[in-house]
Amino acid sequence: MSNEDKYEPVTRARRENSLWLTEEQSDGLRLSLRVTETIFSKKTQYQDILIVDTTEYGRTLVLDGAIQLTERDEFCYSEMMAHVPLCSHPMPRRVLIVGGGDGAILREVLRHPCVECCTLIDIDKDVTLASEKYLPFASAAFFDQRADVRHADALSYLETTNERFDVVIVDSTDPVDFAAGLFQSPFYEDIKRVLKKDGIMTELTESPFSDTALMKQAIGQMRSVFPVVKMYWGAVPTYPSGMWTYGAASLSPDPGKPVRSIEGTRYYSEEVHGASFVLPPFLRDLIR
Amino acid sequence: MSNEDKYEPVTRARRENSLWLTEEQSDGLRLSLRVTETIFSKKTQYQDILIVDTTEYGRTLVLDGAIQLTERDEFCYSEMMAHVPLCSHPMPRRVLIVGGGDGAILREVLRHPCVECCTLIDIDKDVTLASEKYLPFASAAFFDQRADVRHADALSYLETTNERFDVVIVDSTDPVDFAAGLFQSPFYEDIKRVLKKDGIMTELTESPFSDTALMKQAIGQMRSVFPVVKMYWGAVPTYPSGMWTYGAASLSPDPGKPVRSIEGTRYYSEEVHGASFVLPPFLRDLIR
Repeated sequence: MSNEDKYEPVTRARRENSLWLTEEQSDGLRLSLRVTETIFSKKTQYQDILIVDTTEYGRTLVLDGAIQLTERDEFCYSEMMAHVPLCSHPMPRRVLIVGGGDGAILREVLRHPCVECCTLIDIDKDVTLASEKYLPFASAAFFDQRADVRHADALSYLETTNERFDVVIVDSTDPVDFAAGLFQSPFYEDIKRVLKKDGIMTELTESPFSDTALMKQAIGQMRSVFPVVKMYWGAVPTYPSGMWTYGAASLSPDPGKPVRSIEGTRYYSEEVHGASFVLPPFLRDLIR
Repeated sequence: MSNEDKYEPVTRARRENSLWLTEEQSDGLRLSLRVTETIFSKKTQYQDILIVDTTEYGRTLVLDGAIQLTERDEFCYSEMMAHVPLCSHPMPRRVLIVGGGDGAILREVLRHPCVECCTLIDIDKDVTLASEKYLPFASAAFFDQRADVRHADALSYLETTNERFDVVIVDSTDPVDFAAGLFQSPFYEDIKRVLKKDGIMTELTESPFSDTALMKQAIGQMRSVFPVVKMYWGAVPTYPSGMWTYGAASLSPDPGKPVRSIEGTRYYSEEVHGASFVLPPFLRDLIR
């Protein structure tokens, strides 16, 4: 059976736009997007993959019921995950993405001409295959010669690899099941080990309104491992609360100070980079 | 009949937390909050008022089906509406709030000791009465001697009044029905007329993801009237998309440059003030 057969759309529910995708973002909060068509659905060894078309946010990737990216607002997230560490690093040549199997962050990383190779390690090959077929806006960079896409357990890889990186970007799903270890100090120790001199890592740290505990834990554990840890934030409409935080840790460079620039971005700019590290007092106090 | 009788809770639906408040933020986007109790509900001459308790965002005021404020995140909005213009003005003594009948922005305005009088004109007295009784976190400032609360049509007032103000804050509901005129140049001309030298106005300008047309229209109309117009933005989780924009217009001061400070805020700070005027490129381009 060819891939072509395996990835045919499984449903084509067009019910006069009365179908809604509802994410239970937390016990008391739900976000719903009106769906025009179910494009792809598959239960893999690791998770449920769902791709739908929505009226407001375009094509949308959902993993285990949680919206991962939408065509309309993923640039808010992808650009801030990629360009903040890359533009703070004096010369990023080798980059590692943990997770990110849809390819959107890879696409942003490879916009930097100085990057010679970007390794992406996602546990679920089906996400990559589905993205190649149904999310071309995210997956185009898979075909870049500098892309090194592997399907494996990134935690095991990090424990044993001899490869070294200038920047590591952790684009995990929510911290449950196989992703639970991605916000804890042993994981950060492994990342520190694979970072070269001047190395920087970034990771999503959820919303201060929806997952405060995880946010505080992740920043606290980063601080126990790295000499420099800072938080930045930005808007991502389809993530819980729309106010999204990121942790940036480094061996020496200040991730809040851009030293390089990138053209053609829609959310990121040198000025946005600096401004995103200005935390409202309630957020600054939460991670004090 | 006393006010006490009129404002008794009308429903007490406690259905094992299975009740949800769902706002259709746009045709294809819904936000739902789990409700524990309906506190107050009244159909007035102007709108439907609903106050509920929610598990995630606390007590919540809803007007005509649109969430106006929640106990948990209203500070994000109220502080940015009040402190950006007040901290940019050399000496704000007299302030006008158009709308804002719940009192949350009034509360922030009156934290500035230099403010001698803050006039609030909201068309719907029932909102103020309900807030006094059920939203004490928002309405406490009604009892401040410097608060001058009136119930009238602010548009008519602005056309005829001889009163003058240092700062005008427009906290309207969505631009339909009686609020439709609040985003158009004749309204801005009237505001300009009641502003003193160095006067500044601010108004919500909706979300770049949910109401782009209104946002562009409001900024465009402000530019046709005021010599200085700038946009700033911030997070407000329970407003559409969570990414909220504000228009600031002035007769001369730069609303992006704080010249005074305020203590004890949770979202606003002098640094946040500056950072909130840094627009992501896609937003800057939308209002070019």
